[in-house]
Amino acid sequence: MKAAKLMEAKTLKGGGVTSAAGFQAAGVSCGIKPRGEKDLALVVSDVPTDTAATFTTNLVKAAPVKVSMRHMRNGKLRGVVINSGCANACTGVGGIADAKAMTEYCAKALDSKPHEWLVCSTGRIGRRLPMPKVKKGIQKAASKLNPKNGSEAAKAIMTSDTRRKEFAMRFKVDGRKVTIGGMAKGSGMIHPNMATMLCVITTDAAIDKTALRHCVEDAVEHSFNRISVDGDCSTNDTVIVMANGVSGTNVLKSYHPQFTLFKKTLTHVMRKLARMMVEDGEGITRVVDVAVKGAASAKDAKLVALAVAKSELVKTSWTGGDPNWGRIMCALGYSGARVREEMVEIFYDGLVAVVNGQPSKTPIARLRKLVRKPKFTITIHLHAGIGEYSILTTDLTEEYVRINKGE
Amino acid sequence: MKAAKLMEAKTLKGGGVTSAAGFQAAGVSCGIKPRGEKDLALVVSDVPTDTAATFTTNLVKAAPVKVSMRHMRNGKLRGVVINSGCANACTGVGGIADAKAMTEYCAKALDSKPHEWLVCSTGRIGRRLPMPKVKKGIQKAASKLNPKNGSEAAKAIMTSDTRRKEFAMRFKVDGRKVTIGGMAKGSGMIHPNMATMLCVITTDAAIDKTALRHCVEDAVEHSFNRISVDGDCSTNDTVIVMANGVSGTNVLKSYHPQFTLFKKTLTHVMRKLARMMVEDGEGITRVVDVAVKGAASAKDAKLVALAVAKSELVKTSWTGGDPNWGRIMCALGYSGARVREEMVEIFYDGLVAVVNGQPSKTPIARLRKLVRKPKFTITIHLHAGIGEYSILTTDLTEEYVRINKGE
Repeated sequence: MKAAKLMEAKTLKGGGVTSAAGFQAAGVSCGIKPRGEKDLALVVSDVPTDTAATFTTNLVKAAPVKVSMRHMRNGKLRGVVINSGCANACTGVGGIADAKAMTEYCAKALDSKPHEWLVCSTGRIGRRLPMPKVKKGIQKAASKLNPKNGSEAAKAIMTSDTRRKEFAMRFKVDGRKVTIGGMAKGSGMIHPNMATMLCVITTDAAIDKTALRHCVEDAVEHSFNRISVDGDCSTNDTVIVMANGVSGTNVLKSYHPQFTLFKKTLTHVMRKLARMMVEDGEGITRVVDVAVKGAASAKDAKLVALAVAKSELVKTSWTGGDPNWGRIMCALGYSGARVREEMVEIFYDGLVAVVNGQPSKTPIARLRKLVRKPKFTITIHLHAGIGEYSILTTDLTEEYVRINKGE
Repeated sequence: MKAAKLMEAKTLKGGGVTSAAGFQAAGVSCGIKPRGEKDLALVVSDVPTDTAATFTTNLVKAAPVKVSMRHMRNGKLRGVVINSGCANACTGVGGIADAKAMTEYCAKALDSKPHEWLVCSTGRIGRRLPMPKVKKGIQKAASKLNPKNGSEAAKAIMTSDTRRKEFAMRFKVDGRKVTIGGMAKGSGMIHPNMATMLCVITTDAAIDKTALRHCVEDAVEHSFNRISVDGDCSTNDTVIVMANGVSGTNVLKSYHPQFTLFKKTLTHVMRKLARMMVEDGEGITRVVDVAVKGAASAKDAKLVALAVAKSELVKTSWTGGDPNWGRIMCALGYSGARVREEMVEIFYDGLVAVVNGQPSKTPIARLRKLVRKPKFTITIHLHAGIGEYSILTTDLTEEYVRINKGE
């Protein structure tokens, strides 16, 4: 998954979820996390905003996901409330009441209706939220809303993340500046469809609601659905894109000359945030692009990429800086894809390691040097068709185990 | 996967691959492994023997697997030659020539035909065998064949295993003693269909060839296909069962009164060896039985069991002695099975942790104590039907990463 260059849009230095006009945010500490770290965020649009969202495909959905899915059926929204430190998942009807109450507190604090709010939670599964604390937290955050507080919000949604994840870009539509910016969290339980991740993106673009939905689905497919840290797909995954139209341009529809630019930029922003999540993967020491080419079908290419990206043996060999392509060959073989051993080629950053399913003449020392780099690409060519797929993944380290074995 | 008690058959203390009458074995060192450990084994029947075998489902099959599959199409066999320290996989036509040569050396040393031999290899993928050493090794092993050398052979097939895996049982057919015994290797790259494992079982039973094949397929399905250490299925997996008929009983066919006993005992022997592999899993500290009940179908039950047994997050929580059932709920949700969150019950060794998809009243301290034991059972009841499946798996530790990251 390589982010293609985008010439027509400019990266905003220090940009994030409040870079677009007409959005404010806040991030506060309300006592959900034990050590007083920030744990509650608000992102609010000054005006009612069109919104598109995608949610986890996990059948066990957290209460806030259920409530947000329902609120998405309504018209325009006002904003999103997010807490970290507790997933509010597997909490039964009580948990649903809690999630609903969070939207009610937002509505009360910011003169709106509960169904105009989405709600997200992230943290440990199976525990109830401390609602009196959450209520105070929402009131506090509402009083601190500011267009400059994007980074505070990005901080408040972190769990095992070691750093904030923010990114924004600006481009022109009908001669006016349009901005797309966002924040994300996620570093473990990361896998396609989707990561344990939350992502909120805001834009001042004016865009047709259906067109926005299509753009978001497509962008998610090419960003958050193409990363894998540990192969677990969580109960709380949510991507929210709010487009409030404050830029004042004509409404973007598929035939608008800058529509493609909007879509490309949105995808680019999501890919950047997705890459930040992988680079912040729990305990990782390598970020690896697994690119599969020449598969009999796109589906086969995906099977192969996932098998390699999920193999504990392949991932631990990267940790050790060992170009153990035999384990990759092995993963190809059980991936379920049509693979003819004698046709396979494997490259490490363009350096050939396997030809016709057998070792190449590349000295092992050169491959070893490569696998010790913090980032590299493994290209697998199956020579069986034109199917392609790529995924961004990581190694599997002792540190990952250490992080996840504790409570 | 619990081994049911088998009253009619007796465990042979110290029994193994040469416990059955008319089998000899040897295990020698020939220099494939760098430090002079044993690395070549022979298991030979005194008389031509019926044989059934199952091989890896991986599409990338090692050369010895290809050669053995071919030799299985012939009539009776004489024995098996196995080397450790080199998988002879991804070695092209040269590798196939090497595997064939191994059967030729056996034939020459033991007055037989090459196609009367099966060949197995285990070790690192992508390297050629040092054939002059292998040749000498086979000659040496042939000169040391003895009914008492079963343990030597079991030692010679080890790779990352920390201990030999041998087991044998005896029962009566038509008033005569019949023995089934075997050896196995495997501790990493272990996953259904099948583990990175080799297993050779010998029996002096006289059994109809087709009936033997059915028994073996069924026994493998209920033993080696129900264990998972790291979710990788290797290029070299092989289970071989030789039945030489030396016990002199009537030929066992499906209508023979002791046929079921034979089948049960064979399954029992394989389950024992499979459990030994899991207990010797690379770096593990917990052996966990994951039993799924009440799934909408057997297929659904299997999906759930595999999702739980493969989840890095579930496995690392066991390592830390953390009864983090939330991660199990999460795995159920993305398993692909039909799961209704509010119906799910989860038990740790019979102690209820989750009722109706929510935490039970069992004190967390009691669950924690349980998850710190080296062995426990997690029972997941979906209350959606009558589908059942169980799998034996392990935790995922820092030590596993350490073992597999090096060359």
